[in-house]
Amino acid sequence: MQVTSQRKPRGPYRKGIERREQILKTALDVFAQHGDRGSSLQEIADRVGLSQAGVLHYFGSREELLLAVLERRDRLDSEVANEVQNPGDAVAQTVRHNTEQPGLVKLFVALSAAATDPAHHAHGFFADRYRNLADVIARGLEEGQWDGRVRADEQAEHMARLLLAVSDGLQIQWLLDPSLDMAAMVETFNRMCLAWAGPEEQEPEPTR
Amino acid sequence: MQVTSQRKPRGPYRKGIERREQILKTALDVFAQHGDRGSSLQEIADRVGLSQAGVLHYFGSREELLLAVLERRDRLDSEVANEVQNPGDAVAQTVRHNTEQPGLVKLFVALSAAATDPAHHAHGFFADRYRNLADVIARGLEEGQWDGRVRADEQAEHMARLLLAVSDGLQIQWLLDPSLDMAAMVETFNRMCLAWAGPEEQEPEPTR
Repeated sequence: MQVTSQRKPRGPYRKGIERREQILKTALDVFAQHGDRGSSLQEIADRVGLSQAGVLHYFGSREELLLAVLERRDRLDSEVANEVQNPGDAVAQTVRHNTEQPGLVKLFVALSAAATDPAHHAHGFFADRYRNLADVIARGLEEGQWDGRVRADEQAEHMARLLLAVSDGLQIQWLLDPSLDMAAMVETFNRMCLAWAGPEEQEPEPTR
Repeated sequence: MQVTSQRKPRGPYRKGIERREQILKTALDVFAQHGDRGSSLQEIADRVGLSQAGVLHYFGSREELLLAVLERRDRLDSEVANEVQNPGDAVAQTVRHNTEQPGLVKLFVALSAAATDPAHHAHGFFADRYRNLADVIARGLEEGQWDGRVRADEQAEHMARLLLAVSDGLQIQWLLDPSLDMAAMVETFNRMCLAWAGPEEQEPEPTR
């Protein structure tokens, strides 16, 4: 477990953090397969040896637990993304990983849709999430534009927002039809973001 | 009102169809602004001079009414799309129109997310919807590939699925941040689907 502050917390406080971390990891496992079901909370409670109320004590509410799970997933995804140079490749990798965790995809789709309501408890989280991700991806694409890998005839910010939209939209299509190869389609989008590689790859067209 | 059968229905049956149509148009209006609220059904009932039960009589349930509203919206959108040659332009036009109907966007986002559950009553509708739309759009893009407008180095089916994903994903981002210009971003995507227009528009890159 990593704690960001300089000094390590000690005593009961540290135990509480460790317990919360244990529950969070267990919840990720439980949700990864089936998403949020009526029985999910009991399953998490059973696995960590607590009551449902005991589990929720560490998060405040069921809703906050779900949100904590998605936050953690984002953090794990971004750790993977840091190892990949290209933001598009990072998203493709995340999407590929997601196909092994259909439950988390379902949870994300349900919660992000509900959170579009300004009164929803996760509205701020998702608004920040997209703004921050769009910024990070746009900066990565801009770097690619500077060194000639990424097409410079379109705005990096637009391509960044499109990449996020592609990833979200394909999740819905994939849940409706699991035969769809989401990751291959993200890779198609990524190639569409590349600078034109030369006349041997695509015929120039006479008229537009 | 259009009826697809050869002979026009008469008598009480025809009256029932007309009444249903009146309710559907009213529901579209009511949902267009605010989406599905607790008070929506009463508002529809008031406007058409029926009780809530009287309204639901024509659709079976509140859920079926919501679905009928989205089906009708799709039909209206596809009528607009038929007037536009390029499938990407049709989607951009629909998206632009949607910014004037935030309630229908909310309704669509909520219902399409819920319908990813195979047990949901609208699961079949949405699965069919995406398969059919992807087919129609892919055929339109293929035509564009034949006559050199659309890039031929990527699969039309992938670009079609991406276009649908872009449109769905941007709706979520737009509901979270209404300052986003969804339609402009769809247009960016559409330009990325075009065949390379010639060296004056983009510099060829030396390495990839």
